[in-house]
Amino acid sequence: MNKSDIEKLLQAVKSNEIDVEEAVKKIEEVPFEDLGFAKIDNYRELRTGYPEVIYCDGKTVEQVKDIIQFMLTKDNNILATRASEEMYDAVKELCSDAKYNKLGRTITIKRHEYRTTESYIAIVSAGTSDMAVVEEAAETAEIFGNRVEKIVDVGVAGIHRLFAKLDIIRGAKVVIVVAGMEGALASVIGGLVNKPVIAVPTSVGYGANFGGVAALLSMINSCANGISVVNIDNGYGAAYNASLINKL
Amino acid sequence: MNKSDIEKLLQAVKSNEIDVEEAVKKIEEVPFEDLGFAKIDNYRELRTGYPEVIYCDGKTVEQVKDIIQFMLTKDNNILATRASEEMYDAVKELCSDAKYNKLGRTITIKRHEYRTTESYIAIVSAGTSDMAVVEEAAETAEIFGNRVEKIVDVGVAGIHRLFAKLDIIRGAKVVIVVAGMEGALASVIGGLVNKPVIAVPTSVGYGANFGGVAALLSMINSCANGISVVNIDNGYGAAYNASLINKL
Amino acid sequence: MNKSDIEKLLQAVKSNEIDVEEAVKKIEEVPFEDLGFAKIDNYRELRTGYPEVIYCDGKTVEQVKDIIQFMLTKDNNILATRASEEMYDAVKELCSDAKYNKLGRTITIKRHEYRTTESYIAIVSAGTSDMAVVEEAAETAEIFGNRVEKIVDVGVAGIHRLFAKLDIIRGAKVVIVVAGMEGALASVIGGLVNKPVIAVPTSVGYGANFGGVAALLSMINSCANGISVVNIDNGYGAAYNASLINKL
Amino acid sequence: MNKSDIEKLLQAVKSNEIDVEEAVKKIEEVPFEDLGFAKIDNYRELRTGYPEVIYCDGKTVEQVKDIIQFMLTKDNNILATRASEEMYDAVKELCSDAKYNKLGRTITIKRHEYRTTESYIAIVSAGTSDMAVVEEAAETAEIFGNRVEKIVDVGVAGIHRLFAKLDIIRGAKVVIVVAGMEGALASVIGGLVNKPVIAVPTSVGYGANFGGVAALLSMINSCANGISVVNIDNGYGAAYNASLINKL
Amino acid sequence: MNKSDIEKLLQAVKSNEIDVEEAVKKIEEVPFEDLGFAKIDNYRELRTGYPEVIYCDGKTVEQVKDIIQFMLTKDNNILATRASEEMYDAVKELCSDAKYNKLGRTITIKRHEYRTTESYIAIVSAGTSDMAVVEEAAETAEIFGNRVEKIVDVGVAGIHRLFAKLDIIRGAKVVIVVAGMEGALASVIGGLVNKPVIAVPTSVGYGANFGGVAALLSMINSCANGISVVNIDNGYGAAYNASLINKL
Amino acid sequence: MNKSDIEKLLQAVKSNEIDVEEAVKKIEEVPFEDLGFAKIDNYRELRTGYPEVIYCDGKTVEQVKDIIQFMLTKDNNILATRASEEMYDAVKELCSDAKYNKLGRTITIKRHEYRTTESYIAIVSAGTSDMAVVEEAAETAEIFGNRVEKIVDVGVAGIHRLFAKLDIIRGAKVVIVVAGMEGALASVIGGLVNKPVIAVPTSVGYGANFGGVAALLSMINSCANGISVVNIDNGYGAAYNASLINKL
Amino acid sequence: MNKSDIEKLLQAVKSNEIDVEEAVKKIEEVPFEDLGFAKIDNYRELRTGYPEVIYCDGKTVEQVKDIIQFMLTKDNNILATRASEEMYDAVKELCSDAKYNKLGRTITIKRHEYRTTESYIAIVSAGTSDMAVVEEAAETAEIFGNRVEKIVDVGVAGIHRLFAKLDIIRGAKVVIVVAGMEGALASVIGGLVNKPVIAVPTSVGYGANFGGVAALLSMINSCANGISVVNIDNGYGAAYNASLINKL
Amino acid sequence: MNKSDIEKLLQAVKSNEIDVEEAVKKIEEVPFEDLGFAKIDNYRELRTGYPEVIYCDGKTVEQVKDIIQFMLTKDNNILATRASEEMYDAVKELCSDAKYNKLGRTITIKRHEYRTTESYIAIVSAGTSDMAVVEEAAETAEIFGNRVEKIVDVGVAGIHRLFAKLDIIRGAKVVIVVAGMEGALASVIGGLVNKPVIAVPTSVGYGANFGGVAALLSMINSCANGISVVNIDNGYGAAYNASLINKL
Repeated sequence: MNKSDIEKLLQAVKSNEIDVEEAVKKIEEVPFEDLGFAKIDNYRELRTGYPEVIYCDGKTVEQVKDIIQFMLTKDNNILATRASEEMYDAVKELCSDAKYNKLGRTITIKRHEYRTTESYIAIVSAGTSDMAVVEEAAETAEIFGNRVEKIVDVGVAGIHRLFAKLDIIRGAKVVIVVAGMEGALASVIGGLVNKPVIAVPTSVGYGANFGGVAALLSMINSCANGISVVNIDNGYGAAYNASLINKL
Repeated sequence: MNKSDIEKLLQAVKSNEIDVEEAVKKIEEVPFEDLGFAKIDNYRELRTGYPEVIYCDGKTVEQVKDIIQFMLTKDNNILATRASEEMYDAVKELCSDAKYNKLGRTITIKRHEYRTTESYIAIVSAGTSDMAVVEEAAETAEIFGNRVEKIVDVGVAGIHRLFAKLDIIRGAKVVIVVAGMEGALASVIGGLVNKPVIAVPTSVGYGANFGGVAALLSMINSCANGISVVNIDNGYGAAYNASLINKL
Repeated sequence: MNKSDIEKLLQAVKSNEIDVEEAVKKIEEVPFEDLGFAKIDNYRELRTGYPEVIYCDGKTVEQVKDIIQFMLTKDNNILATRASEEMYDAVKELCSDAKYNKLGRTITIKRHEYRTTESYIAIVSAGTSDMAVVEEAAETAEIFGNRVEKIVDVGVAGIHRLFAKLDIIRGAKVVIVVAGMEGALASVIGGLVNKPVIAVPTSVGYGANFGGVAALLSMINSCANGISVVNIDNGYGAAYNASLINKL
Repeated sequence: MNKSDIEKLLQAVKSNEIDVEEAVKKIEEVPFEDLGFAKIDNYRELRTGYPEVIYCDGKTVEQVKDIIQFMLTKDNNILATRASEEMYDAVKELCSDAKYNKLGRTITIKRHEYRTTESYIAIVSAGTSDMAVVEEAAETAEIFGNRVEKIVDVGVAGIHRLFAKLDIIRGAKVVIVVAGMEGALASVIGGLVNKPVIAVPTSVGYGANFGGVAALLSMINSCANGISVVNIDNGYGAAYNASLINKL
Repeated sequence: MNKSDIEKLLQAVKSNEIDVEEAVKKIEEVPFEDLGFAKIDNYRELRTGYPEVIYCDGKTVEQVKDIIQFMLTKDNNILATRASEEMYDAVKELCSDAKYNKLGRTITIKRHEYRTTESYIAIVSAGTSDMAVVEEAAETAEIFGNRVEKIVDVGVAGIHRLFAKLDIIRGAKVVIVVAGMEGALASVIGGLVNKPVIAVPTSVGYGANFGGVAALLSMINSCANGISVVNIDNGYGAAYNASLINKL
Repeated sequence: MNKSDIEKLLQAVKSNEIDVEEAVKKIEEVPFEDLGFAKIDNYRELRTGYPEVIYCDGKTVEQVKDIIQFMLTKDNNILATRASEEMYDAVKELCSDAKYNKLGRTITIKRHEYRTTESYIAIVSAGTSDMAVVEEAAETAEIFGNRVEKIVDVGVAGIHRLFAKLDIIRGAKVVIVVAGMEGALASVIGGLVNKPVIAVPTSVGYGANFGGVAALLSMINSCANGISVVNIDNGYGAAYNASLINKL
Repeated sequence: MNKSDIEKLLQAVKSNEIDVEEAVKKIEEVPFEDLGFAKIDNYRELRTGYPEVIYCDGKTVEQVKDIIQFMLTKDNNILATRASEEMYDAVKELCSDAKYNKLGRTITIKRHEYRTTESYIAIVSAGTSDMAVVEEAAETAEIFGNRVEKIVDVGVAGIHRLFAKLDIIRGAKVVIVVAGMEGALASVIGGLVNKPVIAVPTSVGYGANFGGVAALLSMINSCANGISVVNIDNGYGAAYNASLINKL
Repeated sequence: MNKSDIEKLLQAVKSNEIDVEEAVKKIEEVPFEDLGFAKIDNYRELRTGYPEVIYCDGKTVEQVKDIIQFMLTKDNNILATRASEEMYDAVKELCSDAKYNKLGRTITIKRHEYRTTESYIAIVSAGTSDMAVVEEAAETAEIFGNRVEKIVDVGVAGIHRLFAKLDIIRGAKVVIVVAGMEGALASVIGGLVNKPVIAVPTSVGYGANFGGVAALLSMINSCANGISVVNIDNGYGAAYNASLINKL
């Protein structure tokens, strides 16, 4: 029941088309969720260019296919994360231009153009083992309409390589640091740039990294200011967050 | 050794005022740190209006007093965090207009005006027990030149109070959520606003909250997008981070 | 040795059919477990309509089949939890009307009607990934004779959907909340309803949820009153507990 | 804006006392919280006899005194938990009939009679060291209008004492088990009674009990059905929950 | 209701002094606890020479004094563990021959002689910092009637000192090993003796020993056979256990 | 170099068959390990009837076969723990009378008779899921020459079954309690018997049992005296320990 | 831009071959990374005989093959750790003299001789289950040019075997101790030798060893001086570290 | 019983001054520890210049004073760690030239000169809060006869300060890195120097550093080679270890 609906109702009361008692009931009956829908909107759909997102982990191939089939009717861009190759094969039957990022395990379907930001998100990581999370973050950031720069071979064990790329990192509006064994990377970058840094611990590693907990603790405790942390392996969440900042 | 220094040196070589060998040595000797100093600047000092910051925990009253005495010579604004009342008493001897926020345990000294942003940082918390962290964050954000709105009585146990303040929260450019027993608050706000949310777990609580770990885990695992997390009780870090975002 | 057995024995003593010494021995010999059986009864069997229950995890297909074959001789309803499809196939050979809930991994066999309560148990969860536990809880609650209402798409990230279903949740006599990544859901519901809430953390999720520990801690620490917690993924236990309450 | 307010407004529209545009605005402006207040009520105040509750931990004596002074104006019963003796002394100045339970650290002020249930809550614990939590639970349950039976010297190390009290425990409508070193007690009772059991782990103990974590895990893993768990030392929460069940 | 009671009852039935109905009721009414009391005896009191034990931690001086005053009436030996000096002073007023072991924090009162075993319990520890637990164990073992040999300066860092005492350790019937930083000591002794070894981790140490958890894990994981573990700092429990074995 | 060797050497010195210098050298040269070998003997081999033991986990089928082939040459009894069926098949080729306990995963080969103790070890567990550890413990205890009584269906959830078997448990010289979900069982038995109790936590279970940690903590914290704990699932270690005690 | 480059540039300025402005620019343009490269060199390549190293875990067979193909062009020795047999098969196609250590999971390719140290690294472990880490350490140490002595059957459970090998261990310049279940071994050796000891916890074991955490804690807490610890299972890291020390 | 003792004994046998039987007994009786003492020497005392060390934590002032009084009789240098000021006051009464390092909490007493190494140990830390551990390490290293260079203001948050000191750090023979909040510092230095690095996590910090565990994990997981770790706050152990390496 939007503004014009209310207006019509009141006009009908005024013109005696509808009596007061009935009108009271109609206003009272405005379902909570509808009113809620206006105020507590699911904002994603309201802004052109935002994709529909599906988290595939724990879903069957069939379920993923059905959800995407439904999403396709709405003609939005689509992002599927944690998607297996088998899922991609099923989705390709629905939509031949779907793309798969094997490393990042994302399926992307573009249905309309979106304006990409001029400012960019820098995604920094130390080595090849963190690439899956980097790719998930990059695919997410891009389909949300952000320019992305990846700097992926810059660990603290060979810190001169990091310095060589410092200008690119400093040029970003927001920086994502992805690291598993080398949680220190977030601290070092936090000390070198003057931008918000979103740190993503990864579960890659062995021994006492405890599936990413060591990296998470290292990042959460970092002395360098301007660092905040998202969940282990959560490349999507980091990119979503970075996108919010990049578009401010 | 900046550009004009190098120019002068080369002119001296050209004009034979200095011989080549000596000039080679001078260039070679450019201390790493100086070159570094230009590129890897300690950016804080470069921007007028940024305060000097001192973290008092683990320092003696005497040490805090000495550091602040030195800072006062530079005529910058000053923020001291985790400061005891005893420290404040010592500082007031140096500087009678120093202010103390007893709850937030901050000392602030303003030496010059700074421009405050129009956009604001919302700092949200559930109850009175998280107020110390809220105050630390607020004092930090303000002396860094940010407008701040505090919304401090909005827990999920009485969610209608949160909804009553939703417009203020949604109006912010970035939101800080401070919560100890009620890590859920970050999730709920993350689902209701379309802005970056920085969550600060607090160590307040009893039983199985483990000094803030339960809140930290709850926040890190939050499904709602746009949330990132800083260290337990780190109101300063949250505000520093929010300030970076608010000024983008 | 029940009351009438004792009566008969005493009558026999009185009528000298049996002498005192022998009677003393008979009474003394009442095995502890029999006496116990009367007082410390395994109450389940005493009330018509309660099912026999078998926890299949860690048992072989053969063992499950044997146990159910024995149970069938007692003509009670039967519930098997954590049952694989293979187990179901084996059971169906014994009993063609056995039903399998694939998602909830339960086998149910109904041998007689049971009265279902008028009051109902609401089972609430945030998303599709917690459905296995929801189904286990629902199957359990139903075969124990409870009316059940499932509300399964109401996460805090889109809280308006939860409010739209609030009347159904509030109408329940007891509420089960099932959540993995979104332990916050229990807190929010605990703040909105005036009924006992049984929270079930689930092991679904990734990163720092640690197989459900994060959800468990979040729920245990919830400020909202009226919440208590059962073991991770223990849909059966939650339903058993809710059934006890619903039938009060 | 309640039903009659809406009715009056519509009558005003009908009689042209107010024009449509203004009425639309008034209806639109219905503050969220007001609507919310009707639906998402803070139910406690709505039912006569429920006390006002204040959690004193982390508050100053002054704050506690101020809050209670305000509460006294509403003429409700009052319960303060985690209250120090110093707080009690301050409260007694306001209200000479305030009572203090030193062990349970509660202050209670009764302003009107409340009907006590016939059914009762049994509160069971093993030894003297868990008495503080038992007392907090008992005071809470009583001021919420429940009959309470305490059985406090029944550990599994001397299980015959437990059996001697079994009839009292079995006669309760709901059972609270409080245990620190002896988490086993909840399992044993859960196996002996056919009522909901709310287990409260306590932080009492030494060595590897880790401030109650061992008891919590023991209780959460209990095989016996019908057990659910609240936070460590949370006697108040257990009693609140038990009260909800006892009054069904 | 023992055998002769039953006999009397049956005789009364036979002689019509009591009618059957009443007799049935009497037999039915045999209180559970009484039957239980015969079978499930609290064995400690049954054997002469065993002391009364009181665990003082968490009790007030007044409570400890009252309990011991009561115990003294039974004329048994008495052991109080975790007793403060203040408690000892209070106890000495009741009983001038009470003894205090300051390091072990035990009070002992001997009221009658007990026979001490010929076989002995060896209590081994590495250094001075574990002495408190050694003393608690030794006092306990002695008042339970065991011969005790203490070997307290034998860490693995200077393993030759351990070998010098090996004959004494090997001569024991059961060995208690007390260690905090040096959990390895239990493994080494387990490999050198052919007797049951009871390991007591202690909370002494710094850094990553986590209040004894590191020692506990080290001991629990020990490869050497014949080792079992009791709770951190639980010298009493180790001695109680060793006493059971020593007296076999 | 044993006593008679030394004697012979000295006789040779006395009779001038060997000169002093050479004799000094011989005595000095006694290799540390040999002297050690006499004092620090690997006691197992010294007592007839003790089996050779092999821990198969982490070894290949080939390695296990080779080791057992070598062991067979010594004509001792042999026990292999954590052995797969495939390993058993390989061993049977070497030795047709090898026996396999499928549940306990042990291979046993008896080469000579051993005297079995009259006193027995009771092995108690709650349910079918802990049977693997029970069987490992039983096979170990038996081949070490102990009489064993298994009582395997006695959980605290149906405590009357435990009481029915109490006499058998109390009759043992030492009791092993095996429990995963129901760590409480050890406490209850510890309170009912007057013998050393060795508790084995098992990794069986789900949810927050954390691979046996919950059971381990529950057992370690048990109030009942006389309980000590071995590693999770370590049926072998418990039996080895119990055997040491049973043979005292 | 090295010294002679600068000299030439300055000569060119002096001789007017190049004007000052251009020279300034050249000096300014010295890329950070190049300067960095000189000072912050990746030292490994600078010393003849050091191998190229590749960590294979988490890489595909194809990736490993490509990297090694590239490495082969540089004609250095090559070490691949955590390599599967499948990887080895692929590498052998490129280079028929590649060697595979199946237990240690290393591939080594020797392209030129290197001088081996006279001093040696002792690698000590308790049993067969830690052999994989021992082999990784040994292969690493050898291809880095160190003499290695392995002592692999010396656990504390049979400590005389350790003493028999003590001279070899004491003769080393640095000692690596590899242990999983028997973290005590590091303490014992630390007490017996006067050389730096590098302890490697391994993830081998069961029950409460928690994938090596128990061993790690045991080693970190060791009282014996001279011990430091590397990551769980990190044989490579221990050997790298030992090599640095052995070559001092 | 040393070589000449044995010789004398054999001469006595030869000359019939003592008979064979008695001689056998004497040789047999050679106490284990004496033989052991020769081989398993407590090496510290054997080398001139090594100090006596006393760990004061957990000792009383009286005990520390007594131990040092005894040590003084041996005329060695003395190091006391974790010493309170009160302890120092007591020691100064014994020995007026004792020195106290208030920050490092060490007492040192020099009784003779020792040769200091030419090579040095670099001790690096990030900030003022880690100074206590730095000082403990420095005092230890110096009294063990090592040259020490402290570089204490070089955190990764301002990495240019670290680079300015890189030459000093690289010039050391072995490097100690002390860090609490900034575990990353060890990784960065490990990547920049080609020497063994001993990392000391410190317990300084707040929030999720868990008394140094976060730093410990960060250091243990460091990718950079050449790093090993000692216990939290164990400056003494790091220095002892570094001294062993520095003197190779």
